[in-house]
Amino acid sequence: MARTLIHGAVIVTATEDAWIPEGYLIVEGNRIQEVGTGAYQGSQESFDRVIDAKGKLAMPGLINTHGHAAMTLLRGYADDLPLQTWLEERCWPVEDKMTADDIFWGTQLAILEMLKGGTTTFTDMYFEMDGVAQAAKDSGIRAVLSRGLIGFPPKGEASRAQAIEFNEKWHGAANNRITVTFGPHAPYTCPPDYLKTVVAVSEELNLPIQIHLSETAREVSECIEQHGMTPIKLMEELGVFSRPTLAAHCVHLTDEDIEILAKYDVRVAHNPDSNLKLGSGVAPVTKMLEKGVTVGLGTDGAASNNNLDMFEEMRMAAMLHKGVNQDAIAVNAFKALEMATTDGARALFLEESLGTLQAGALADLLLLDIDQPHFYPRHNMIAHLVYSAGSRDVTHVLIDGELVVEDRKVLTMDEQKIYAEIERVCARLFAE
Amino acid sequence: MARTLIHGAVIVTATEDAWIPEGYLIVEGNRIQEVGTGAYQGSQESFDRVIDAKGKLAMPGLINTHGHAAMTLLRGYADDLPLQTWLEERCWPVEDKMTADDIFWGTQLAILEMLKGGTTTFTDMYFEMDGVAQAAKDSGIRAVLSRGLIGFPPKGEASRAQAIEFNEKWHGAANNRITVTFGPHAPYTCPPDYLKTVVAVSEELNLPIQIHLSETAREVSECIEQHGMTPIKLMEELGVFSRPTLAAHCVHLTDEDIEILAKYDVRVAHNPDSNLKLGSGVAPVTKMLEKGVTVGLGTDGAASNNNLDMFEEMRMAAMLHKGVNQDAIAVNAFKALEMATTDGARALFLEESLGTLQAGALADLLLLDIDQPHFYPRHNMIAHLVYSAGSRDVTHVLIDGELVVEDRKVLTMDEQKIYAEIERVCARLFAE
Ligand SMILES: [Zn+2]
Ligand SMILES: [Zn+2]
Repeated sequence: MARTLIHGAVIVTATEDAWIPEGYLIVEGNRIQEVGTGAYQGSQESFDRVIDAKGKLAMPGLINTHGHAAMTLLRGYADDLPLQTWLEERCWPVEDKMTADDIFWGTQLAILEMLKGGTTTFTDMYFEMDGVAQAAKDSGIRAVLSRGLIGFPPKGEASRAQAIEFNEKWHGAANNRITVTFGPHAPYTCPPDYLKTVVAVSEELNLPIQIHLSETAREVSECIEQHGMTPIKLMEELGVFSRPTLAAHCVHLTDEDIEILAKYDVRVAHNPDSNLKLGSGVAPVTKMLEKGVTVGLGTDGAASNNNLDMFEEMRMAAMLHKGVNQDAIAVNAFKALEMATTDGARALFLEESLGTLQAGALADLLLLDIDQPHFYPRHNMIAHLVYSAGSRDVTHVLIDGELVVEDRKVLTMDEQKIYAEIERVCARLFAE
Repeated sequence: MARTLIHGAVIVTATEDAWIPEGYLIVEGNRIQEVGTGAYQGSQESFDRVIDAKGKLAMPGLINTHGHAAMTLLRGYADDLPLQTWLEERCWPVEDKMTADDIFWGTQLAILEMLKGGTTTFTDMYFEMDGVAQAAKDSGIRAVLSRGLIGFPPKGEASRAQAIEFNEKWHGAANNRITVTFGPHAPYTCPPDYLKTVVAVSEELNLPIQIHLSETAREVSECIEQHGMTPIKLMEELGVFSRPTLAAHCVHLTDEDIEILAKYDVRVAHNPDSNLKLGSGVAPVTKMLEKGVTVGLGTDGAASNNNLDMFEEMRMAAMLHKGVNQDAIAVNAFKALEMATTDGARALFLEESLGTLQAGALADLLLLDIDQPHFYPRHNMIAHLVYSAGSRDVTHVLIDGELVVEDRKVLTMDEQKIYAEIERVCARLFAE
């Protein structure tokens, strides 16, 4: 198995609110074999690759727990609009025209951006997912993928069949870098009976569920009107939470909703930027954390963000709840780091092997150039990561033990070709 | 006079919600002489410098309307603490120990970071300001500087005398890059009688005033207890607003306060990140804008941010008010861009010549590398600047017609020397 040595780095393992001022990492195959402190004293000859990481900081790769990668095609196309106009008049008409080829290239653009910004795992719920899986496989990124399910006839049956087929084809592919979850879009697009069949299939295939829940006040009030209960309560009633579930957004929650999330250990994907940009509101993250709910971070699609920058989400998660609650100790820096790493892994039901730098963990990690003004003085590297760092500080990314980004260049993708293809597909997609 | 040609760039002039897909800029001396569309057709021989900006975007330099540069020394030293603990137990004891040398180097670190991130004008209120002015002069940045005034005896008289002396020495220095304002710290540190003398001196010396106002709920309620009115109303009563005034923060405002700000054309420095991080709250920016109040953006000091990144402030200004007001059309992208450029210039009473790319304006501008995934597709460059761009996309900065940053390198400063000096001064300052 290939062995890599990374030495001379500041190391943030994300297992504790502390850092190693100088240390080294040994990667063997796709796992971290050793995390050491001080200079590496052994021979460097036994390694297939040695990375001198002086002036750099090593940390676990960032885990994006919610998104729709191909929506990069809509980046900047529909901003500063009310949510319904944005969705119904701008996003949906374009999405109706999207082909498998469009989605393949839109996803490549998303993966390119995420890799450059240190995201090593992304989550996706969309359609024409074969191209998404192929792009993930080829690029070297780790991915948790769902064929998004809209439950109204006649599409409901067909999309569920596609999801089952997608699972057979891709679950565990690419050395297990690709895992599949079942993705009913939301309670307002999947009627109760349909959700019950989803639960049954999820159980049969042993797949977790991911779903959008309680994103807007309107969604919640309409659900109460229609079903006499909140979306969270409805999910409990329908047995969705009997399955391992990742719930995206959870912005508008009652105290009872939060109790339910905690009771069933529902994992939450918090998307602070998207929730702000679409005017959805601010999720009650501090309350969820108090009740022990696992909260990961997500970018959502680029149409509502507009980038796929997990450093920004981490920073926003640490800042926003302080301000809105007028409580300067809400969501501290280390908690925000955990949300982007260890809690993110947990949100995706991958916590056994992902999200930290420790012996035995999957070797998904990044290096940051900390020889820059915003990383001085060196009082607290955890604070610097969360409050000062940015995605463009990332220089190297390893995923599953493989070097995917080196000196800010993505080794597995052809950047200029992707830009050209994006212009090509957009010329058709957005033609009058 | 030296002439510079920048050609092949996407150009955002910030005078309208639009961009030039390909254009050129001619800079003569310290002014923009021409902004043209299309390829530059003339001879390049008459220019002293030609910058091929293909794959780049040119925009006005960013204007930071509030900060305390030397507080970079405290970056990461005191995070996730309640505001009073942060201030009284962490910041003040260190500031008490700060020497002119510390402040000189802390300011250099701040300027280095700001230049790299495309900030071409910064605002400062601190002490030992000669070093701040010197650092601004040497680095090539534009600066609006105040000797911060604490009005309690015995320091009040001395600091006012220092402020007057500082003005004599530095106002208009460095080809007018340095301007001076009068800086009473806040109503809770400057008693009414003291503020009245400040108003008189400000009038006599013809200098604008900058002051912190209504940052926290506690400050406002204590002011009402003590003076029977809000800080804004108190400033009106004391005649402060009879002078051109820049008010930092303005987080906790009554509707009457906003009317007063509008009536006197008080300029506001909105510091969204700092207000969030310290748990101060969210300023009523949409209400201020509705009433016609000029709102610029600021980072505040690095101890409460923790970086000096105006792209983050611009993005935050465009995102935060949408989310908190659950209104996806609040503070659109172009307004956020204006807040960081033209409105920022206005906030600093420099609007006549600063903040846009148009013939006759001061040549303060930056180039961004837009050959990156987060700038594709090219639906809307204004949206990309605000929602997608980051400070590390900046490659070149011109200030007052001079090239200060080239290919991400600050030409006027010795980066490694600054880091070494920061470590030196911090070793003393933070010694047990
Ligand atoms: Zn979503
Ligand atoms: Zn301040």
